[in-house]
Amino acid sequence: MNVGSTPYRTVWLKGDTVHMINQPLLPHSFEVVELHDPVHTASAIREMVVRGAGAIGATAGFAMAQAALAAPDDGFHIHIADAAKVVRDARPTAQNLFYAVDKVLAAIENEGDNLSAAREAAVATAQEIADDDAKCCETIGRNGSPLIQQDMRISTHCNAGWLAFVDWGSALSPIYVAHREGKSPFVWVDETRPRSQGARLTAWELAQEGVPHQIVADNATGHLMRTGQVDMVIVGSDRIAANGDVANKIGTYSSAVVAAENNIPFYVAAPTTTIDPDCSHGDAIPIETRSEDEVLYTWGWSDTGAFDRVRTAPMESRAHNPAFDVTPGRLVTGIITEKGVVPATPEGIASVARS
Amino acid sequence: MNVGSTPYRTVWLKGDTVHMINQPLLPHSFEVVELHDPVHTASAIREMVVRGAGAIGATAGFAMAQAALAAPDDGFHIHIADAAKVVRDARPTAQNLFYAVDKVLAAIENEGDNLSAAREAAVATAQEIADDDAKCCETIGRNGSPLIQQDMRISTHCNAGWLAFVDWGSALSPIYVAHREGKSPFVWVDETRPRSQGARLTAWELAQEGVPHQIVADNATGHLMRTGQVDMVIVGSDRIAANGDVANKIGTYSSAVVAAENNIPFYVAAPTTTIDPDCSHGDAIPIETRSEDEVLYTWGWSDTGAFDRVRTAPMESRAHNPAFDVTPGRLVTGIITEKGVVPATPEGIASVARS
Repeated sequence: MNVGSTPYRTVWLKGDTVHMINQPLLPHSFEVVELHDPVHTASAIREMVVRGAGAIGATAGFAMAQAALAAPDDGFHIHIADAAKVVRDARPTAQNLFYAVDKVLAAIENEGDNLSAAREAAVATAQEIADDDAKCCETIGRNGSPLIQQDMRISTHCNAGWLAFVDWGSALSPIYVAHREGKSPFVWVDETRPRSQGARLTAWELAQEGVPHQIVADNATGHLMRTGQVDMVIVGSDRIAANGDVANKIGTYSSAVVAAENNIPFYVAAPTTTIDPDCSHGDAIPIETRSEDEVLYTWGWSDTGAFDRVRTAPMESRAHNPAFDVTPGRLVTGIITEKGVVPATPEGIASVARS
Repeated sequence: MNVGSTPYRTVWLKGDTVHMINQPLLPHSFEVVELHDPVHTASAIREMVVRGAGAIGATAGFAMAQAALAAPDDGFHIHIADAAKVVRDARPTAQNLFYAVDKVLAAIENEGDNLSAAREAAVATAQEIADDDAKCCETIGRNGSPLIQQDMRISTHCNAGWLAFVDWGSALSPIYVAHREGKSPFVWVDETRPRSQGARLTAWELAQEGVPHQIVADNATGHLMRTGQVDMVIVGSDRIAANGDVANKIGTYSSAVVAAENNIPFYVAAPTTTIDPDCSHGDAIPIETRSEDEVLYTWGWSDTGAFDRVRTAPMESRAHNPAFDVTPGRLVTGIITEKGVVPATPEGIASVARS
């Protein structure tokens, strides 16, 4: 998507160098990091210079391609195996990362002792992983855009935009497609405390792409819904259970309940890789509890331009910080996937889930 | 209520000096300001050293008592009239302020040319206004406490505690009474973005009084409700319409909707002075839109101890900042007043409203 008027992806390979947007600096400065070997690329994953399942997967694939390009003929496969270990260790819970590493490894193995062909296959496979992610998200956008009517005001939560993928995003993709189709959507951006991904990342994406938007405190969204200022909601998802229950950033559930109370359509947009067929219902999804400091402090840029944190809470008070919540499928109007829009029911999920 | 182990009110008169807690410094330092004349007391109201309807009313009364004590015999009534103008101008929309000024003025007038008696009456009346506010809030607490069972986990939003009144508070008063009765209530404190009154003031009050609590992002409250971790909700109110609709801090409505979805009792606690019999329903209550900077920035204390603000949002993004919302009476389990707990219906409101 656009940054200024230049199209970008979150991560790409040029020659043997991985380029990625330095996301922790957003929205206050835009910087592209260049990584010249798989160890540094893995470090960038670990240090969350890049985040989001799709973007992490693509980055892991590119790191393996870098490993293949750099590995000497002598001991080639040992070098590759070492690199795979380093990349796998970068984010041990990121499924897309393992998938990408394994896919590039398989492509390399497939060429046997033809190391030149193995290097080419590694690069081509890594590129394919990135392209597939971008294509999947663009298709989510094309499938979701027909739900968006002219001048609709859409509420979204957290960041399920292109910064979390290679391009386009999930929840924001239908909005980008509708915007480019001239439907003039307007977006209410939930700030999304405690980590403020809405205010930081979603607002930045929308500003760069020229989509009209305003940031609101998470507390304000219900009021906007009750007073007829929200026409639909689109959010992303971290995990979708087989029965249609949806895990997503904390606050999604409240948004869904208030949307239902006000008869506002509530859509979840996600690639079908987000579906976990082995998870029968939402309450089987473990909810991560994160550091209470995320609630007790707020991070941002001071007027001097320095990145800093401020504490609003008393020093003696404690906080509780569940990072995700579960929205029952009955509150979800539909799930927008690259395979189409389906109901958040066992049948709907089964119709698009990978077997 | 207690600060450390010493009982305090938000504002009090000692001799001819008004003392008040310097609220903008909370929770990071506790300081009592001493104001020696009505002009400085009015300035403290204007600069929000003190806030909240009840506390502002009491402060205005004390300022008028100061004026009576300081006014010379020669031109006494002119001095009093000048002081009344200064105090009235401090917060031109605060009804309690006008009420207090008028009440002290009437007490002075009632003594005619007996200036010594007039000064005594001014002090006694101002003290009575403060005592009445404290007594009213304590009675709200005694009326609300029977709703709180042993070990209940109570969610609250914003700050409707003693800092907004002279003592006890509205939403927090039943909790303080229950705590002192040994019922061991636990409080989930909504951070309450954008101005963070929950994290700053409610958490501080509870910590000082020794009530167990944890601060949560406003986004987390719905999840806590859905997963059975909230037994009841008590919030305050800025204005109650004749039909039982309640205006309160932005985010209250969402909390009420999600509480109803999960069959959790949702109470509003407020003195009957909060009822506006001339306002037929909630949508007749104007909703103040405040500066977008409150959303785009967060204020607090940096690790160096300096009060500072940080910006999370892009410089080019705008925000929308409605300060209050309206909760329909049908979502309110009951309204806890100093005259008893009544349903949020036209009949319930009429039974306790001032005629």
